[in-house]
Amino acid sequence: MSRLDLFIDRMVSQRACLEHAAALVADMNGPAFELGLGNGRTYHHMRKVLDPRDIYVFERAVASHPDSTPPDDMLILGDVFETLPQALDRFGPVAALVHADLGGHDRAKNDTFARNISPYVQPLLAPGGVMVSSDRMYFEGFEELPLPEHAVPGRCFIYRAPG
Amino acid sequence: MSRLDLFIDRMVSQRACLEHAAALVADMNGPAFELGLGNGRTYHHMRKVLDPRDIYVFERAVASHPDSTPPDDMLILGDVFETLPQALDRFGPVAALVHADLGGHDRAKNDTFARNISPYVQPLLAPGGVMVSSDRMYFEGFEELPLPEHAVPGRCFIYRAPG
Ligand SMILES: C[S@@+](CC[C@H](N)C(=O)[O-])C[C@H]1O[C@@H](n2cnc3c(N)ncnc32)[C@H](O)[C@@H]1O
Ligand code: NI
Ligand code: NI
Repeated sequence: MSRLDLFIDRMVSQRACLEHAAALVADMNGPAFELGLGNGRTYHHMRKVLDPRDIYVFERAVASHPDSTPPDDMLILGDVFETLPQALDRFGPVAALVHADLGGHDRAKNDTFARNISPYVQPLLAPGGVMVSSDRMYFEGFEELPLPEHAVPGRCFIYRAPG
Repeated sequence: MSRLDLFIDRMVSQRACLEHAAALVADMNGPAFELGLGNGRTYHHMRKVLDPRDIYVFERAVASHPDSTPPDDMLILGDVFETLPQALDRFGPVAALVHADLGGHDRAKNDTFARNISPYVQPLLAPGGVMVSSDRMYFEGFEELPLPEHAVPGRCFIYRAPG
C-alpha cells in the first residue's frame, strides 16, 4: 500500500464512522467534541452531519482552513491533557459524540498517546455516547462497535458508553 | 459536500487516473514528472505504480513526509515557470507521464494557473504521453481522455499527446 492508499482509507473510514456515529446519537442531547482540528476537514464534515449540535474543538495550535475554523467560543485551546479535565469540570459527562484524530505518522507513538489519553476521554461521554477514533482506544467498560460499511478495519474505531 | 467529501474525491480520482495513465504508457520509455510534491502522497503512489521508471519531481519548497521525499538527483527545485523550460532543454520531449497537483484551495486562481502553465507542460510530453491533472488544462491538439472507473468528474483530468 502506498501512503496515498493508507490516507484514502483513513479519510473514508473517518467519514463512514462519523456518519454512523451521528445516526447512533441522533436522539441524544449533548455536544460533540472534536479532538484535534488539523486542516479542519473532519470538523467541516461533522458540522454537516451533526448540525445544529454544538461542536467544541480541542486544539493546541489552530492551523485550519478559514472555512473550517470554529468560532472562538467553540474553540478550546491548549494541550488535551489539560483541557479535557477542564471540560469535564465545565460540562460534566454530557458528550454525545467524541471524535479524535490526534496522531501523527508514528504508529507506536500514536498507540502510546491513545493509551494515555483514553482515561481523559472516557468520563466525558454521556451514557450511550459514542467515540470515533483513528487509533485504538483503551477504555474500561465501553463496547467496541462493529464498523459501518466503507470503513476499513484498523483505520478507524468506534466505542459506545453503556446506556 | 463537505471539504472532507471533496478531498476524498480528489485523492480517489488522483489514484484512479494515475493507475490508468501508468497502464496507458506501460510500453513507452521516458521518465515521469511529478509537478508539486506537497506531502508526497501521490509521489509515493507513483513510485508504486511506475516502478522502475524514473520520476523527476518539480517543487518550489520541499515539505514532504521523509519516506516520500525524492533523492536529490531526482528533485528539480524552483518555480515551475522556470524549471519546466530548463527540463525541456535538458530532456527534450520525452515524458511518458506528467502528473500535476499544483493548486491550492482557490478555484479561480487554480484555473488561471493551469491556463498559464499549460504551454509549459505541453512540449515536455513524448508522442502518446499522458498528462494527469487536478485542474482542467489548456492544451492545443491533445485529446482529453474519458475518466477511468472510480475517478470523479471535475476532480481529475487526463490528456494524451497525439502518438
Ligand atoms: C497540493 S500540493 C501537492 C500534493 C501532492 N499531490 C500530495 O499528494 O501530497 C501542491 C504543491 O505544489 C507546489 N507548487 C505550487 N506552485 C508551484 C510552482 N509555481 N512551482 C513549484 N512548485 C509549486 C507547492 O509548493 C505544493 O507543495
Ligand atoms: Ni512515517
Ligand atoms: Ni477555501
